[in-house]
Amino acid sequence: MKDGIETRLYVDAALTDGAVIDVGAERAHYLQSVLRLGAGETVALFNGRDGEWRARIDGIGKGWASLALRERTRDQRPESDLWLVFAPIKRARTDFTGQKAAELGVSLLWPIMTRHTRIKRVNTGRLAANAIEAAEQSDRLTVPEVRAPATLAAMIEAWPEDRPLILCDETGGTPIAAALSDPAVRGAGRAGLVTGPEGGFAQEELDRLRKLAFVTRVSLGPRLLRADTAALAALAVWQATVGDWVS
Amino acid sequence: MKDGIETRLYVDAALTDGAVIDVGAERAHYLQSVLRLGAGETVALFNGRDGEWRARIDGIGKGWASLALRERTRDQRPESDLWLVFAPIKRARTDFTGQKAAELGVSLLWPIMTRHTRIKRVNTGRLAANAIEAAEQSDRLTVPEVRAPATLAAMIEAWPEDRPLILCDETGGTPIAAALSDPAVRGAGRAGLVTGPEGGFAQEELDRLRKLAFVTRVSLGPRLLRADTAALAALAVWQATVGDWVS
Repeated sequence: MKDGIETRLYVDAALTDGAVIDVGAERAHYLQSVLRLGAGETVALFNGRDGEWRARIDGIGKGWASLALRERTRDQRPESDLWLVFAPIKRARTDFTGQKAAELGVSLLWPIMTRHTRIKRVNTGRLAANAIEAAEQSDRLTVPEVRAPATLAAMIEAWPEDRPLILCDETGGTPIAAALSDPAVRGAGRAGLVTGPEGGFAQEELDRLRKLAFVTRVSLGPRLLRADTAALAALAVWQATVGDWVS
Repeated sequence: MKDGIETRLYVDAALTDGAVIDVGAERAHYLQSVLRLGAGETVALFNGRDGEWRARIDGIGKGWASLALRERTRDQRPESDLWLVFAPIKRARTDFTGQKAAELGVSLLWPIMTRHTRIKRVNTGRLAANAIEAAEQSDRLTVPEVRAPATLAAMIEAWPEDRPLILCDETGGTPIAAALSDPAVRGAGRAGLVTGPEGGFAQEELDRLRKLAFVTRVSLGPRLLRADTAALAALAVWQATVGDWVS
């Protein structure tokens, strides 16, 4: 608990009047040994469906904590419908991407394997844990879904055609703000952003992506951006110009 | 040198036809022991004034490297006139801010000490080194200036009144994209962004900032952002909507 901000925990369980929640060993340890909270103290719980609730620690011990729901403090409301599809990079930068993307409101994180991706395996549990912690701290009422890694081809195959896919293309494209002002993109109310690995997309990958009707190629300016910087920057611009920062 | 991208080094020395540059012990070590470059190989040099030059390693040894300029490959051109004023946070996040801000084109990094800033001392040498490395890798022809830390009051005192100061205010403000579309802000051709520490600005600091004619308060949406995320997000939105990502 920092700077007087209430401790917020994401849980799976249904949150209803009178419910008693067992938060599991890991969260119990966090409450007891990291935050040094004891019985009688309150935290906030959310599960992505039932709003936010104030809960009182009824009992806490080694590996367990039991929390009693007191009152609903916020109603559930719709959050951004924004997906981030990204070629994973080394661990620290993937951690960073999961944290920052959650703060910037993504609803889904989807790692993709591309021609120049050097990472063989993505720790999706770790990615989800980073995203959940950032969601808790950023005052969200949902946490991002983390999808299992797919090849670029499988991602394209599975892509819903009514969701604009904004391709951050370092070889060029429409300046991002202009691209996002297109009524077909703005009006959709949802989007996905896709960023490549440190080596960029291969030419045949770009050729394939550019041909798809739901893909809009965008440029992020004249400088070379690292993959994680590009993802964060594009998410911020989307939120500021189309998403929930607009009003 | 990754992915075939040329090694780029920032140097202080004047870059002119026929010049021979001694890059110093640290850079020599980097060229020899990290990149494993030897005599006869080429790198690119820039100094923020004389464009970019191709240089050949004439000689290299323990703690020294001598580079001969071959030809100018790019002319110097104006870059973004964008300052980032930020309350420093813990080391890893300050490192990150220096790196990402340089990628996103800031011309000046200025740490400020605010009421809730917990860091007592800023390692400006480390901040500059992070910014320089990111400038080298992002293909810039300049590096950000790093200014000595100042109190918020001293910063305000020294602020040039013809430079809009965009205050990222977590207590509320005009949505950032709308604020940046104001002709007085867009038309200035330069700006500064200011972000607070993890605990936010104190109320009297906000009151003081809001009264200044050159300050525009902006909101970065409904979620709580970490200080470093707010800085990077605001920089990206500025570049995308006013800066050099526009065309």
